[in-house]
Amino acid sequence: MSKDILSEHRNRIDQLDEKLIRLLAERFEITKAVGILKAEEGMPAGDPDREAQQIERLHEIAKEVGMDLDFSEKVFRLIVDEVIRHHIRTAEETSGS
Amino acid sequence: MSKDILSEHRNRIDQLDEKLIRLLAERFEITKAVGILKAEEGMPAGDPDREAQQIERLHEIAKEVGMDLDFSEKVFRLIVDEVIRHHIRTAEETSGS
Repeated sequence: MSKDILSEHRNRIDQLDEKLIRLLAERFEITKAVGILKAEEGMPAGDPDREAQQIERLHEIAKEVGMDLDFSEKVFRLIVDEVIRHHIRTAEETSGS
Repeated sequence: MSKDILSEHRNRIDQLDEKLIRLLAERFEITKAVGILKAEEGMPAGDPDREAQQIERLHEIAKEVGMDLDFSEKVFRLIVDEVIRHHIRTAEETSGS
C-alpha cells in the first residue's frame, strides 16, 4: 500500500524534475542571447547590481512559498555561476572570431 | 536599442525564475509527503539506488536539451541534499511526537 503511494510520489517527482531541467534549458537559451549581446557591447559577464535585485526578488517568492532562503539562494548562485561561465566563453569566442 | 533587448531578456528570465521557484516548492510538497511516509515506515532518509536512477535519467534529459551534465548533477545534488535534510527533520519530529 505505502509502496504504491511512494511510487506515485516518485513518478510525480520525476515529471517535475524533467520540467525543471527543461525550464533551466529555456533559461540558458535566453542568457545565451544576453551573453552574445554583452560580448558584442563589451559589457562585463557578471552584474552585481542585477544579481542583488534578483536575490531580493527570489527571497520574496521563496518566503511566499515557504522555501528556505539559504536554499533558494544556493540554487540561484549555482545557476548564475553557470551563466557567467557561459558568458565568459561567449566573450572569448566573440573576441577570438 | 540593445538596452531594451537586454531588459526584455531580463523580464523573461525573471518570469522563468519565478516558475523555477514555484516548481521547486511543488517538488518539496511531494517530498514532504515522502518524508512522512518514510518516517512512519522507519525507512532511511536517503536512497542511493533511487538517486542513481534519477541522475541517469537527468543526464539523458540534460543531453537532449544540450545542458552541461556536471551542472545538471550539481543542481540535482543541491535539491536532494535539501530533501534529505527535510526527511531527517521529519523523522526526528515523528519519533519525538
